[in-house]
Amino acid sequence: MEKVKIGIIGAGRIGRLHAENIVHIPQVEIKTISDLFVENLQEWANKIGIQNVTSDYNDILNDSEIDAVFICSPTNTHLSIIRDAAKAGKHIFCEKPISFSTEETKEALKIVKETGVKLQVGFNRRFDKHFKKVHDTVKEGVVGEPQLVKITSRDPEPPPAEYIKSSGGLFVDMAIHDYDIARYVTGSEVVEVYVQGANLIDPAIGDLGDIDTALTILKFENGALGVIDNSRKAVYGYDQRVEVFGSKGSVANQNEQPTNVVVNTVDGIYQEKLKNFFLDRYKDAYLEETHAFIQSVLYDTPLVCKGEDGLEAELIAEAAKASLLTKQPVKIKREEYKLV
Amino acid sequence: MEKVKIGIIGAGRIGRLHAENIVHIPQVEIKTISDLFVENLQEWANKIGIQNVTSDYNDILNDSEIDAVFICSPTNTHLSIIRDAAKAGKHIFCEKPISFSTEETKEALKIVKETGVKLQVGFNRRFDKHFKKVHDTVKEGVVGEPQLVKITSRDPEPPPAEYIKSSGGLFVDMAIHDYDIARYVTGSEVVEVYVQGANLIDPAIGDLGDIDTALTILKFENGALGVIDNSRKAVYGYDQRVEVFGSKGSVANQNEQPTNVVVNTVDGIYQEKLKNFFLDRYKDAYLEETHAFIQSVLYDTPLVCKGEDGLEAELIAEAAKASLLTKQPVKIKREEYKLV
Amino acid sequence: MEKVKIGIIGAGRIGRLHAENIVHIPQVEIKTISDLFVENLQEWANKIGIQNVTSDYNDILNDSEIDAVFICSPTNTHLSIIRDAAKAGKHIFCEKPISFSTEETKEALKIVKETGVKLQVGFNRRFDKHFKKVHDTVKEGVVGEPQLVKITSRDPEPPPAEYIKSSGGLFVDMAIHDYDIARYVTGSEVVEVYVQGANLIDPAIGDLGDIDTALTILKFENGALGVIDNSRKAVYGYDQRVEVFGSKGSVANQNEQPTNVVVNTVDGIYQEKLKNFFLDRYKDAYLEETHAFIQSVLYDTPLVCKGEDGLEAELIAEAAKASLLTKQPVKIKREEYKLV
Amino acid sequence: MEKVKIGIIGAGRIGRLHAENIVHIPQVEIKTISDLFVENLQEWANKIGIQNVTSDYNDILNDSEIDAVFICSPTNTHLSIIRDAAKAGKHIFCEKPISFSTEETKEALKIVKETGVKLQVGFNRRFDKHFKKVHDTVKEGVVGEPQLVKITSRDPEPPPAEYIKSSGGLFVDMAIHDYDIARYVTGSEVVEVYVQGANLIDPAIGDLGDIDTALTILKFENGALGVIDNSRKAVYGYDQRVEVFGSKGSVANQNEQPTNVVVNTVDGIYQEKLKNFFLDRYKDAYLEETHAFIQSVLYDTPLVCKGEDGLEAELIAEAAKASLLTKQPVKIKREEYKLV
Repeated sequence: MEKVKIGIIGAGRIGRLHAENIVHIPQVEIKTISDLFVENLQEWANKIGIQNVTSDYNDILNDSEIDAVFICSPTNTHLSIIRDAAKAGKHIFCEKPISFSTEETKEALKIVKETGVKLQVGFNRRFDKHFKKVHDTVKEGVVGEPQLVKITSRDPEPPPAEYIKSSGGLFVDMAIHDYDIARYVTGSEVVEVYVQGANLIDPAIGDLGDIDTALTILKFENGALGVIDNSRKAVYGYDQRVEVFGSKGSVANQNEQPTNVVVNTVDGIYQEKLKNFFLDRYKDAYLEETHAFIQSVLYDTPLVCKGEDGLEAELIAEAAKASLLTKQPVKIKREEYKLV
Repeated sequence: MEKVKIGIIGAGRIGRLHAENIVHIPQVEIKTISDLFVENLQEWANKIGIQNVTSDYNDILNDSEIDAVFICSPTNTHLSIIRDAAKAGKHIFCEKPISFSTEETKEALKIVKETGVKLQVGFNRRFDKHFKKVHDTVKEGVVGEPQLVKITSRDPEPPPAEYIKSSGGLFVDMAIHDYDIARYVTGSEVVEVYVQGANLIDPAIGDLGDIDTALTILKFENGALGVIDNSRKAVYGYDQRVEVFGSKGSVANQNEQPTNVVVNTVDGIYQEKLKNFFLDRYKDAYLEETHAFIQSVLYDTPLVCKGEDGLEAELIAEAAKASLLTKQPVKIKREEYKLV
Repeated sequence: MEKVKIGIIGAGRIGRLHAENIVHIPQVEIKTISDLFVENLQEWANKIGIQNVTSDYNDILNDSEIDAVFICSPTNTHLSIIRDAAKAGKHIFCEKPISFSTEETKEALKIVKETGVKLQVGFNRRFDKHFKKVHDTVKEGVVGEPQLVKITSRDPEPPPAEYIKSSGGLFVDMAIHDYDIARYVTGSEVVEVYVQGANLIDPAIGDLGDIDTALTILKFENGALGVIDNSRKAVYGYDQRVEVFGSKGSVANQNEQPTNVVVNTVDGIYQEKLKNFFLDRYKDAYLEETHAFIQSVLYDTPLVCKGEDGLEAELIAEAAKASLLTKQPVKIKREEYKLV
Repeated sequence: MEKVKIGIIGAGRIGRLHAENIVHIPQVEIKTISDLFVENLQEWANKIGIQNVTSDYNDILNDSEIDAVFICSPTNTHLSIIRDAAKAGKHIFCEKPISFSTEETKEALKIVKETGVKLQVGFNRRFDKHFKKVHDTVKEGVVGEPQLVKITSRDPEPPPAEYIKSSGGLFVDMAIHDYDIARYVTGSEVVEVYVQGANLIDPAIGDLGDIDTALTILKFENGALGVIDNSRKAVYGYDQRVEVFGSKGSVANQNEQPTNVVVNTVDGIYQEKLKNFFLDRYKDAYLEETHAFIQSVLYDTPLVCKGEDGLEAELIAEAAKASLLTKQPVKIKREEYKLV
């Protein structure tokens, strides 16, 4: 395989982001991009060097030259596209979540397994150098056996109500990243979830049946306990931290600011507020995850973030939803899935 | 009142600490100290300038010259001493917890109310400059309405099994400080508690029916959510942090190290580990709390930390115990007490 | 002008770095690269998409399609190439220093002025976001009138003796960046220099008549004082900081580490050591400076870092050399140059 | 010797500070305090438990019960009091500087040597835990052989013109602490000094022939170079830092703030400005230095900061003055003194 040929399905914000990252990887060529809305797409595609634009993603799947696809379309289309792509023998990079239902996700994983294609899920934070360093430090045993995990995950601004409606809610849309990070940094599976949620920021979110503030307690297979705090609105910027505490110490990453410059005046000591936007904060991580996927396609290296990781995070999200409703701790229903 | 005359009941570690702080306050004289075990006590008392040593605390209560007492005896003796002291018209500084039962504590508060004496509870962290600054910042509205509170409270080393037995367990002995801080920094009451506990550090603690690791979720009257993480063993030192996140921002204190010196070598960047011992970390806070109590006795200034604060923390500890047993969220039983 | 066409003269480490950055700028095409040693060059050039490779830089200057050149050849070739390029009407990006003699540099500037081409000098640190933020903060008046400037500039490892020989010495090779930063962050010219130098790291450096450790005091036109400390060997990494202190406060940047992860263990608090290599530390700055040059060529925007800035830094280096020899403070000889 | 009996000569700000620290040391009794101005002194003396107040310091020197004296009177009285006290066999704690002339100081040291009394000089910063940790770290060899030393020493506010007049100027009054710290942290003597000074803050200071801003380069016996930056006005507080850079790394202390609380808002990240006043910043250090002196008197332990240290700092100040006048580097005239 000389150059990996790629098709991108979905040319929204995240699809275009991936495309713009991929064009800088020498071993890759984006052959075709598809989107239902192709207006203006041609011009952008030309500018970054993508030859073909289509409104039918089957043009990509039917192209025998294309090795792999990036699925960046709305979540409710993922399962059928994964099915078609897997059957067409294309390796798959799929944005998170794989689907809105763990049943659908299990089905997707089954097809992927049967067809033998690769499936990477878009948990970009695993590719952030700071989160990765926390993971590596734990894995090297520097902090001993993990006992407590604390994840802070706060958005700078709630999404518009329109988005909330089709987002699957805070657990599936936002906290799913944190569920993945919890598993990633501890190396242990979550077995039970308890949630306290609240609607403190925007009543419109509550009206849609969603919450905007949450504390989630996780119990891990190894006995460790974890807590995630989520808020839809941290006015000071995008707040993303993790701390792992263990028998031999603790490890934590810090937030990133635009610069590290410190100012002293008669009023106090100042630094710039946090980076405000996920595309800015995780710029390098998005680049890294496409690199890693391409490497895996090219050289059959192991995936850092597989379909199973997507399912695990969704199972936690499902339990979190159930806990919020029942006000009880809820066990992860992993058995059935393991039988698949 | 020219000089406040003080009696100290209980000359263990904490009783001696208070005594050594009080002797440096010009407006105070420690007239008498009592302890069941008076051996060696006389020498120490002489050295710091306390004239009278007795094995019977009634010698203090019956001394009409004495204005106030510090109760530093074992917790199971607090109620009866408070009762006697209040009836004798002495103002009371009582170490935490007031008792091992919220019923006893309510009784103590009733007597105190009836007799009109002052009762300050030994929640020393309220007097730590860093925690106080967090409280003040929240109170001034800088972070807006509190929405999330995160408390880290980890001891450097578990106490000996012998101590655990009579300690009342992690909630009453250790986390009770955190319950108080949660109320102190938010200015809101806790209405519900959920606990996940584990025995990850020392099996001997589990054998005694106690836990050494806990995550506690708090729900506040104002709608905010809180989480406390407790560990009995942080090998890197005494880890004590709080963060309040609100509609306008967040505020957090940092840990203290012996010095702030930073070393760069070929191996990395190093700083000294955290202060390791509560008497070292809260040295100034212990001094401040005695100052504040004396000021209140002298000038009738309001207490920063009253008997009711002691009861509230104990109610939370009681709910935490119940939650651990039932694996359910538990509401605080405040109604009855409010009727008292 | 649709796309800027570029020629690169000199395909050593820095020439290739610029080339690899430029290929990612959509509005630019690198048409030709020249180097005396063309072996292996073709393969690399192909890989990044440069069509023509030549051993004669006149092929670039004689190509009427080429708009601008990057001069990345050895310093002693700069003047003649600048002369030829300017006469050929090419805009010029020239690596620092412009020459080893302020006389030659003045001649280069004269030609550039006469021909009207642009000349940007490769002071990459002006394009580093942290240094730029310090500059901006001072310029906005946040710290008032600058009174003290402190620059720390320490390399992780001395260059090989072979390099030292042809480098022009610590002042011209290394500290010249700091002279530029001193002018950049204060917005004021240097009028006097005093140097204390020492050979503390590698005797071989002293044998070559050079120093490896220096403190340089600068006096500025506005009355401010500055100090630069240079070392050829900071075992903990590439240490690059600046602080500007003024009538209303101070502003300083921090170093960069590979990640911001903090580890607590029984031995203390650890962070990774500093980034170790200038190509790593200033990766983004190198990208930014080529962007800025291209923008200036395309849209005639003002240069951030002009030939005159190169000369000023060289005048300071010249005075530093004189101060080291005479052990006296030395005034900058700016008059003659201003007459040019 | 059961209890050390102390006399304090001079009851100004610093004399009272020492007195208030000493009364908390159990092994010491302040028997008498003297001051030319005794009004209101009696009341304060009573309050802290000093029995005798006198306007004649000879009452102290003639009291055979008194073991040691603290000389806290104006600098121009030091020599004669030291002479008298030494002849009376009293151990001496003397505030800095010992005198305004290195000749007088040499004379004082001669008398002290002849009489065999102890002489501690009030360089309080040696007793600050952060500076001491830097010193200890260097001494333990952690940073290897010192090569560069950087001291930042900035006052929050210039003293009133009246004080400047009798202060001896910036070098003797303010920077003398920094000269001592330079020797203390490196463990090497200063051999040459070069100064650039300026009057940038208050013209009144310039009118008095003094400067308010200075950069001082030090050359050490071991070959290391040092730089001190002084300003009389850092609007953001009392800025006191030192960094020692050596063959194996670097070590630096940080400033202290009232609390370490960090606030995040929509405007950025804030911390309280630095401690603003030397009595606040060095509170513990002042306590420690009196402790150390008393320990030395009681148990004949070695002094941390001797008369010779006072002289060395004054020799550097003298050279600094000469350098400012001559605009030349000036060698320390240590020879003569060593002959004494």
